[in-house]
Amino acid sequence: MAASALLKSRCRRASYLNKLAKAEDLIDLFPHNSYIGWSGFTGVGYPKKVPTALADYVEQNGLQGKLKYNLFVGASSGAETENRWARLNMIERRAPHQVGKEIAKGINNGNIKFFDKHLSMFPVDLMYGFYTKHKSNNRLDVAIIEASAITEDGGIIPGASVGASPEIIQMADKIIIELNTAPYLIMAPEDRIGTPHIPIDPERVVALVESDYPDQTTENAPEDETSQAIARNLIEFLEHEVKHGRLPVNLLPLQSGIGNIANAVIGGLAKGGANFKNLKVWTEVLQDSFLDLFDSGNLDFATATSIRFSPGGFQRFYDGWENYHSKLILRSQQVSNSPEIIRRLGVIGMNTPVEVDIYAHANSTCVLGSRMLNGLGGSADFLRSSKYSIMHTPSTRPSKTDPTGVSCIVPMCTHVDQTEHDLDVIVTEIGLADVRGMCPRERAREIIKQCAHPDYRPILQDYFDKAEYECLKKGMGHEPHLLFNSFDMHKNLVENGTMKISGWK
Amino acid sequence: MAASALLKSRCRRASYLNKLAKAEDLIDLFPHNSYIGWSGFTGVGYPKKVPTALADYVEQNGLQGKLKYNLFVGASSGAETENRWARLNMIERRAPHQVGKEIAKGINNGNIKFFDKHLSMFPVDLMYGFYTKHKSNNRLDVAIIEASAITEDGGIIPGASVGASPEIIQMADKIIIELNTAPYLIMAPEDRIGTPHIPIDPERVVALVESDYPDQTTENAPEDETSQAIARNLIEFLEHEVKHGRLPVNLLPLQSGIGNIANAVIGGLAKGGANFKNLKVWTEVLQDSFLDLFDSGNLDFATATSIRFSPGGFQRFYDGWENYHSKLILRSQQVSNSPEIIRRLGVIGMNTPVEVDIYAHANSTCVLGSRMLNGLGGSADFLRSSKYSIMHTPSTRPSKTDPTGVSCIVPMCTHVDQTEHDLDVIVTEIGLADVRGMCPRERAREIIKQCAHPDYRPILQDYFDKAEYECLKKGMGHEPHLLFNSFDMHKNLVENGTMKISGWK
Repeated sequence: MAASALLKSRCRRASYLNKLAKAEDLIDLFPHNSYIGWSGFTGVGYPKKVPTALADYVEQNGLQGKLKYNLFVGASSGAETENRWARLNMIERRAPHQVGKEIAKGINNGNIKFFDKHLSMFPVDLMYGFYTKHKSNNRLDVAIIEASAITEDGGIIPGASVGASPEIIQMADKIIIELNTAPYLIMAPEDRIGTPHIPIDPERVVALVESDYPDQTTENAPEDETSQAIARNLIEFLEHEVKHGRLPVNLLPLQSGIGNIANAVIGGLAKGGANFKNLKVWTEVLQDSFLDLFDSGNLDFATATSIRFSPGGFQRFYDGWENYHSKLILRSQQVSNSPEIIRRLGVIGMNTPVEVDIYAHANSTCVLGSRMLNGLGGSADFLRSSKYSIMHTPSTRPSKTDPTGVSCIVPMCTHVDQTEHDLDVIVTEIGLADVRGMCPRERAREIIKQCAHPDYRPILQDYFDKAEYECLKKGMGHEPHLLFNSFDMHKNLVENGTMKISGWK
Repeated sequence: MAASALLKSRCRRASYLNKLAKAEDLIDLFPHNSYIGWSGFTGVGYPKKVPTALADYVEQNGLQGKLKYNLFVGASSGAETENRWARLNMIERRAPHQVGKEIAKGINNGNIKFFDKHLSMFPVDLMYGFYTKHKSNNRLDVAIIEASAITEDGGIIPGASVGASPEIIQMADKIIIELNTAPYLIMAPEDRIGTPHIPIDPERVVALVESDYPDQTTENAPEDETSQAIARNLIEFLEHEVKHGRLPVNLLPLQSGIGNIANAVIGGLAKGGANFKNLKVWTEVLQDSFLDLFDSGNLDFATATSIRFSPGGFQRFYDGWENYHSKLILRSQQVSNSPEIIRRLGVIGMNTPVEVDIYAHANSTCVLGSRMLNGLGGSADFLRSSKYSIMHTPSTRPSKTDPTGVSCIVPMCTHVDQTEHDLDVIVTEIGLADVRGMCPRERAREIIKQCAHPDYRPILQDYFDKAEYECLKKGMGHEPHLLFNSFDMHKNLVENGTMKISGWK
């Protein structure tokens, strides 16, 4: 197969060109029940050609549910690949994170065995052989890795994410490289982006596939009044901490999750209201708002494992390359999410949960205890180890029939991903509860008062008052609950479309 | 006040002798609502004279509930001090751990504001000023530190524990040293035990108090048939992992919690059954069984933050000093429990919970979601970061009326301290569930099959089957629950004295 000039220019290891293959000719490398690793993280830097060819093959031959794979990716992949695989019932097992309607559907309808793992821990446990313990050689069968270039000694320059690619490569018997020649943010040699290439054993490379599909990212959720109010409350708190000498004037490295609240917080730091200069960012994923923060002049440096910009954001990033490239490093997720480094740097960690309870446990993954959204991601990597562990959430979300039908502050979380031992601050558009050093009963009063929506404040206060009375009476009042009614608000939501209940039995 | 010859021999900083005081003369240093730090960890190395004098003062003057203190200790202190303070209603606030009937009672009846924190994190957050944020100078008022000797430059050689003493000293305005001259395990210079002294600012030492009270430890809970069966199952698993190349033949550093199961596991490693040689221990507390492990010749080295032997164990330790002292180091709890080091060393972490649920969440602290036992301790420091995170528990405990009235395997934990993202292995006397890489539905099947008591296996299986059917039907089956019946077994226990229910509604 002949290599294009563009491909040759990107592939500095000539011997790989002998392995140049078309994706559709590689189907035989993927027998049923194979263990497969992909590059990719938060929907960028994932392989596109081979997964698409496999999906085409399954579709054309009616093999839905017959060719199924154990699929490991650093975090989420692109919708047109893993989502399509899910729709075609090609995924037997999946870890440690995912995004997409079809894959969430497959997980929640039982087709896909998904296990949800700390993103920092996943590559390590993979290397330990914990996830391949049923295979005689304890290894992955095939890795498919997207590269933006290949070095002289065969190493890979990754795309827009590093994620778990180094460990996936190390654990794989066979390696397929998708060399993406589309205009790409990481076109420059490794010294320009600051990431060394990923070393690779050339003997294990079985195919090189040319690719020109861009990452299929979408627009970011826009800021709204609620997320801006949350950001204001949070920035006010950071100013307070600086004033009291617990934070330096340029704060500490910031971690910010994904979504419109995270965008509003970072946006708020970029705008005139906040006076923080010389900020640094130690995070998992960079969104568009970080470009604003760079442009404001307030951000000195940012590092992550993935840059998930919108299509417009990528364009803006290329256009401003000269300004941005020296202020940015991508690292593997084992490093970006390392509890050790997060603790040492004293990171300010900020994430959005499904719900928080009055004692400061948080649910990041399972709606009503059972329905998986995306997974834990790096939330506990950061919140367990940050100096400041902050959960930001709107106080309510709409249900189908009530604009404030779902309270994000609940008596007891239906699933716990972050424990009361980890969270310092809860913030909503209503206000901010700083619960450091508080016992659970103090925490409950503070969270209800500062964070709950006025529609739910009396309901939650009534729960707490009754629980406190009942539990103290029995000498079990450390963390008072009406245990057998603790999910009554959720029950009312399921039965009547709103969490607003008239009272506690 | 004149110093005894013994005291002079232990206090190599002469100027401190001018500050020699009687405990009962120091009451004025402790106004109501003071912030106080003590040395101590797991009931050893805590100050005895001054806390006792304060308790006497309160008792003799009827000041119960009028002189109350904010009390911080690395972990638990001695029963005759903090328990007595609790009984006299002298504790306003307490963190991060406690042991004792009276203090647990005070916490659960609302007299004591207790917050429960990872032991590794507590000293750091204390230094950040998070727990003194309401005080204008962000500091502790007084530290009371037990020492077994004082160095020339005024530094402290700690007693049987290090715990959070270094940080408590650093944060305190005033320091009182209780120099314990009772026959003591750490009587030798710092080089013999391998621990450097704790540096101290002599200007802040306000008093030196002679003490001769030994640590009031109790006998260990004896091994029984159940704990020995658990130990056998666990050792068999470790042998399996060695056979498959995921563990070296001398295993990896072991962490073992407190209690009779931990004793049986460590005892099992000491006996002929297991063939592991050259073991090392990286743990929080050493119990008597570690002396057996030393004596078996299988243990090369052990390090902890506290040695909590029984009175007979301490005697045995002194008698065998020449054999033990070079194989043992005590460190501060920030180091012994450091997630960073635990992860780097690949520790095998083993702890006992209150209950574990079918999806591998664990409750380590709050019975029925509300009644605090002792606190989180180091359980999450270790289980979150270990290479192997293992929960060992009897499958059942007795209730008042039913010898197997409480199942330790439940549908949903009533309080979550360790999440499903952290646990690898659950083991009971029935068997062992290795849930690495399993999705929640697989985990539930495995835990019910391998770990549940036969009396509860059909009940739990029925819960899971019904939950799976209901949740899959609604497309929310990632982690199936009958959310509004998930605590029915607990409810039956409260109402009828046993978790054995006839069915799920």
